[in-house]
Amino acid sequence: MAPALPAPAPGPIKCKAAVAWGPNEELVIEDIEVDAPHAGEVRIRMVAVSLCHTDISFLGMVQAQFPRILGHEGAGIVESVGEGVKHLKVGDHVLPLSFPECGECANCKSEFNNLCEKYVKNMKELQMLHPIDQKSRFSVSKAGETQQIFSFLTSIFSEYTVVSEDCCAKIHEDAPFEKACIFACAIPTGFGAAWNTVKVEKGSTVAIVGLGTIGLAVADATRIAGASRIIGIDINSGKFDLAKRFGVTECINPKDCQSPIQKVLQDLTNGGVDYFFECVGKVDLVEAALESTREGSGKTVVLGFDGSCRQLSFNPLLLFGRSIMSSVCGGYKGRSHVPGLVDKLVKKELFVDNYITHTLPFKEINKAIALLNSGTCLRCVMTMG
Amino acid sequence: MAPALPAPAPGPIKCKAAVAWGPNEELVIEDIEVDAPHAGEVRIRMVAVSLCHTDISFLGMVQAQFPRILGHEGAGIVESVGEGVKHLKVGDHVLPLSFPECGECANCKSEFNNLCEKYVKNMKELQMLHPIDQKSRFSVSKAGETQQIFSFLTSIFSEYTVVSEDCCAKIHEDAPFEKACIFACAIPTGFGAAWNTVKVEKGSTVAIVGLGTIGLAVADATRIAGASRIIGIDINSGKFDLAKRFGVTECINPKDCQSPIQKVLQDLTNGGVDYFFECVGKVDLVEAALESTREGSGKTVVLGFDGSCRQLSFNPLLLFGRSIMSSVCGGYKGRSHVPGLVDKLVKKELFVDNYITHTLPFKEINKAIALLNSGTCLRCVMTMG
Ligand SMILES: [Zn+2]
Ligand SMILES: [Zn+2]
Ligand SMILES: [Zn+2]
Ligand SMILES: [Zn+2]
Repeated sequence: MAPALPAPAPGPIKCKAAVAWGPNEELVIEDIEVDAPHAGEVRIRMVAVSLCHTDISFLGMVQAQFPRILGHEGAGIVESVGEGVKHLKVGDHVLPLSFPECGECANCKSEFNNLCEKYVKNMKELQMLHPIDQKSRFSVSKAGETQQIFSFLTSIFSEYTVVSEDCCAKIHEDAPFEKACIFACAIPTGFGAAWNTVKVEKGSTVAIVGLGTIGLAVADATRIAGASRIIGIDINSGKFDLAKRFGVTECINPKDCQSPIQKVLQDLTNGGVDYFFECVGKVDLVEAALESTREGSGKTVVLGFDGSCRQLSFNPLLLFGRSIMSSVCGGYKGRSHVPGLVDKLVKKELFVDNYITHTLPFKEINKAIALLNSGTCLRCVMTMG
Repeated sequence: MAPALPAPAPGPIKCKAAVAWGPNEELVIEDIEVDAPHAGEVRIRMVAVSLCHTDISFLGMVQAQFPRILGHEGAGIVESVGEGVKHLKVGDHVLPLSFPECGECANCKSEFNNLCEKYVKNMKELQMLHPIDQKSRFSVSKAGETQQIFSFLTSIFSEYTVVSEDCCAKIHEDAPFEKACIFACAIPTGFGAAWNTVKVEKGSTVAIVGLGTIGLAVADATRIAGASRIIGIDINSGKFDLAKRFGVTECINPKDCQSPIQKVLQDLTNGGVDYFFECVGKVDLVEAALESTREGSGKTVVLGFDGSCRQLSFNPLLLFGRSIMSSVCGGYKGRSHVPGLVDKLVKKELFVDNYITHTLPFKEINKAIALLNSGTCLRCVMTMG
């Protein structure tokens, strides 16, 4: 038998992608060209992707540069690998992740820090995860002219994407892509806030403000951890029925309350909640959260900020045994921890069907955006045709 | 042999105490009368006491009511017990504690909260720990007139004091009183911040601002925990030599620096310290602390505030995997945990000689105040003659 020939070096590839041409514009499915993976990178054929609010928020940024390929929650298969790739091979099932792990920097080597130093600046700016040259791997030709397409995190709204292997979690091949895709952002973000950033224990009392996918993932995780009361807070009471399916035991709409939410929660819980998860990203809600938690032990966990960035400001005496912390990507290290979380899906220890309220073919991505904006959708999973 | 007669019900007792007659006045050793312990209370003969900055701060409060008996760091022997006392008997060696533990309330029953609900209001106001009637157990007669003396926490600057048994840690009888006394405040406050509130781990980088007794106890505890760098910060460089005896590996005087302390620490540690302990109580130092800690994992621990109470205010984006928390009495539960800490002294696992820079007879308490104010003294232990 003749020995197998070495695989030919990968070249650029043509495929379809959803391109954002300008702020708040509808995405357009375009024929684009995707570079071959550079050294240390892999090119991935996306199989299933889903939409996260962060994509929509970025699409609304008038100061951002376009054209751009959005998306950071998807699952696919390694199609080709660049020079020197160590951990992945063609055919591996993977999640491209917006929280990379080089494995070499001081933070990656620390047990307690999941912000890889090599990429942290890119992460904070939601920029392309190509720290080597800060360039995108995508281009589009229109009327004979070729232009580069900007990236956004892992840019998975494309049939193919290219990311560093540092940004790729290799997952169990029995994990269904159309469920695994939400393990690239929503699931670790919500579950990790409750399981890693703090360790919610049996019998504890929890409040969650913002009953979108992330807030409900937090509810789900605290339910599994044995929290006895999970109080969901949202200004849209239409979300309350669905929330109960995720473990929320009671719901409060601040608009229906006579007192500020911190007073309502203090009264309701006889001294404050043990854990408050802020999943909206508003500074004033963080301040209210602090006062809603139990003196002496209450913990406020902030899952992100909306970018309005006024100062967070409070009476320091409120910190009387209380603490406040933020959870970035649930404190999980991407390559090390996310595969184990996906294993729970495979072993049927974790069920995520409730999160996937809608499915669509990828080419109908603008419908998915409308659905997510409507508030009735948690995750709309799109398959690549 | 005739059966032992029941102990006679205790009556009031006459003794000497150091009385503060007005703000910033010298204390006066007076003949006072101490009530018999009420139900649930014990009367303690103090053997050794020491002075803490909190006593001096309170003495400077012009709005406080006087006369008053200060002091909250001492060790003694139970002289008599009130009705229904369950955990203590005459002759027990004890530390009267300013962080009580009733054992019955929700916080006492929680593993994570050391603020006994029965006393938390008193604790915050540094008021007498007699929640039943909010009255002191001390009085003084001058020129035929008797007046009540106000309490302050456990009021141990008296040959006898009366406290609830909830405020009493029973300690090993081999523990020397003149060392055990500082386990009533300084040692648990400093050690607990590093061992309970956070768990400083081997190899971590620590900054401590304020190199008084509490700051040095934190240094000592982080040294024992295996911290590899312990950076001491103080505006009095005269404290640096002593600090090194407690494990501080390098010292910084912000007055000698060209850049703000957060910049100095970021540069010195290549990205920030893992733990920052704020032992001065200034809001601007807490804000600087937050920026001095490592993004993604840095923890700021606040050990108290000086009462000036301007708002704590910072850019919320600084909370990017960072956290901020306060440590009240080191997170220790008084009755449950302090005896175990004193056991370490008895077993020679913990050495506290370095803290006790001065000793004096109790009647020279005004000298002790001058010593502590001078900055050359950590703890001045006074024995009761
Ligand atoms: Zn996301
Ligand atoms: Zn790294
Ligand atoms: Zn003290
Ligand atoms: Zn209690």
